[in-house]
Amino acid sequence: MAVSLSRRGDVEPFHAMDVLAEANRLKALGKPVISMAVGQPSDPAPTLVREAAAKALVEGRIGYTDALGTAELRNAIAAHYQEYYGLEVPATRIAVTTGSSAAFNLAFLAMFDTGDRVAIAAPGYPAYRNIMKALGLDVVEIELEGAAYLRSEHLREAHAEKPLKGAVFASPANPTGAVVPADDLEALVRTAEELGIALISDEIYHRLAYSAPDTTALAFSPDVTVINSFSKYYCMTGWRIGWMVLPEKLVRPVERVQQSLYISAPELSQIGATQAFRATDELEAVKARYAWNRDLLMQRLPELGFSLAAPMDGAFYAYCDVSRLTNDSMEFARAMLAEAHVAATPGHDFDPLAGQRFMRFSYAGSHDDMAEALDRIGRWLG
Amino acid sequence: MAVSLSRRGDVEPFHAMDVLAEANRLKALGKPVISMAVGQPSDPAPTLVREAAAKALVEGRIGYTDALGTAELRNAIAAHYQEYYGLEVPATRIAVTTGSSAAFNLAFLAMFDTGDRVAIAAPGYPAYRNIMKALGLDVVEIELEGAAYLRSEHLREAHAEKPLKGAVFASPANPTGAVVPADDLEALVRTAEELGIALISDEIYHRLAYSAPDTTALAFSPDVTVINSFSKYYCMTGWRIGWMVLPEKLVRPVERVQQSLYISAPELSQIGATQAFRATDELEAVKARYAWNRDLLMQRLPELGFSLAAPMDGAFYAYCDVSRLTNDSMEFARAMLAEAHVAATPGHDFDPLAGQRFMRFSYAGSHDDMAEALDRIGRWLG
Repeated sequence: MAVSLSRRGDVEPFHAMDVLAEANRLKALGKPVISMAVGQPSDPAPTLVREAAAKALVEGRIGYTDALGTAELRNAIAAHYQEYYGLEVPATRIAVTTGSSAAFNLAFLAMFDTGDRVAIAAPGYPAYRNIMKALGLDVVEIELEGAAYLRSEHLREAHAEKPLKGAVFASPANPTGAVVPADDLEALVRTAEELGIALISDEIYHRLAYSAPDTTALAFSPDVTVINSFSKYYCMTGWRIGWMVLPEKLVRPVERVQQSLYISAPELSQIGATQAFRATDELEAVKARYAWNRDLLMQRLPELGFSLAAPMDGAFYAYCDVSRLTNDSMEFARAMLAEAHVAATPGHDFDPLAGQRFMRFSYAGSHDDMAEALDRIGRWLG
Repeated sequence: MAVSLSRRGDVEPFHAMDVLAEANRLKALGKPVISMAVGQPSDPAPTLVREAAAKALVEGRIGYTDALGTAELRNAIAAHYQEYYGLEVPATRIAVTTGSSAAFNLAFLAMFDTGDRVAIAAPGYPAYRNIMKALGLDVVEIELEGAAYLRSEHLREAHAEKPLKGAVFASPANPTGAVVPADDLEALVRTAEELGIALISDEIYHRLAYSAPDTTALAFSPDVTVINSFSKYYCMTGWRIGWMVLPEKLVRPVERVQQSLYISAPELSQIGATQAFRATDELEAVKARYAWNRDLLMQRLPELGFSLAAPMDGAFYAYCDVSRLTNDSMEFARAMLAEAHVAATPGHDFDPLAGQRFMRFSYAGSHDDMAEALDRIGRWLG
């Protein structure tokens, strides 16, 4: 039989996931691997979340929910916008998704057609680029070239070259941790309005800002598509649960695409996530540990030859220029994992042009693991 | 700001999901709705599955797994092919997915490009058509016109008109329940081989065959892409967990697309699903109840004016010709839900051409509910 392979399936690997698979393989062989590769908290989901899920497991059937999510979770998310941001967001504009991964796919499918020009920042989250390419979008990479984050001028410049249909940005950003200040965020939104560019604001690292406040793009326009998740601050990566806040007109298109492509997000995760906003004490303690880890990395990484390439305002990443140590961060990451048993992500994931000079370290692990990993890297570098 | 709406986001709704949302809304208002609309078991997941998930919740972190799934679950699925079908399928060819929904999206993305002609049978599962359209494939609807299932001659005829790149079929089928006999299945595979058509075999209703044995397409070729799920026989709809068996050459492309589009399937669901193959006693008891429901529907539906349009060999659906009762099954379903509080799915979901003459009833609920639903429909009809 013909085995059919598409051209669009030929996307780049998400190298962090390949590193994870290799780290898991080494762990299964008994190697004491410390992972700083994948952006995931080492803490379990909050107790209230796990208790709610455990109760649902005893009580009965875990079934399909409405495609847009359970009423309870959509209401809890709406209430969170009131409590945390002081914003009125109706639950009817919220779509519960299978992680932010599904939210990006849904946004791109419902908003853009094949060939549409959509801008992203480099460095940036690799899945933006990979999903867009698989869906036939024309990905416009805006090289930040040392700028900490995407600015309205970047957008204006790219649009002048050839009109953009949309743009995606993140604050706090992955891999840099940079936070867009409120006035620059407002300028970005106003510029997009002026130029007719549809904006997607990735707010998955909200509530993980250390040195600057996190502002939602919704504060400036109800027409931004906002994507968020329970994976990061709420420590629920493997639960695959996130959400979108949609402009009115996009609600029904997203619902229709969700019905066929996902049916609904996992119900157990929806039941758990409904409790997540009540777990602030537990989660702030976790965040305090990230801040402690951050202080450690901010001091030790530069001493070891990894120059910080960004300010580490938020998220749980250090993005480092490794050109003093190697001219091939992919090979360097491979060797560091094989020999020092420390996994980190090569910059190629985030920046196809300049990535070979960079690496990303996630500091969402335990403090002891972070300290041990840095010691190992120090010994390994000799 | 410009709210961007794509053309491809303008897919048909999955009407069964709209009916589910309306049924949930009525239930929340205290109406005693019985749902025969969505294909989901009323039983919870097997005890062993729920116990394994509960244990994982206590023990700790639920995280990302390898993109292709945990080694434990991939091995368990491989063992299932040996035990149930007597086939050697290496675990390396298995990809764990977020339900069969993700598996279809992954298969279509990794196998086909925009404009590729891919055949499906009408009536058939609506998400095939909706996902394909969102991805820009050229959907070739093969009207079965009373034939119980897709045959090699259908494929040959459609291919002669204009070459097909691929074809998707299901056995047992949704919405008809028809099972493709082994020799016709082999003929389908051989014809696809001869014509160079890539086949996707949807085996999500396997182990739910009542009057004919279920045969996997893998028995005839390792190059068929097989899609299966824990949702139906294993009663795990809301867990969103399924799998693919891939031709060797497709493993890495699917892994790459999965890394960016899904990261991984929910870990708790993977942990639970690993136990599902050990729960056969519990699940066969559930299947026995479906068989009992099936007997009831086979007798009562025709008495009420719903002619059976297909043999009900497998799955848990009765597909009925309702032209004696209405010439608009969509309006009929709406009225039946509003007035008799029984939800069923209009045929339009499964067949955009002839669907207004048909309805699908799912009999995966409790026997009492099925009996009560039929009584209500009887009283409602008059």
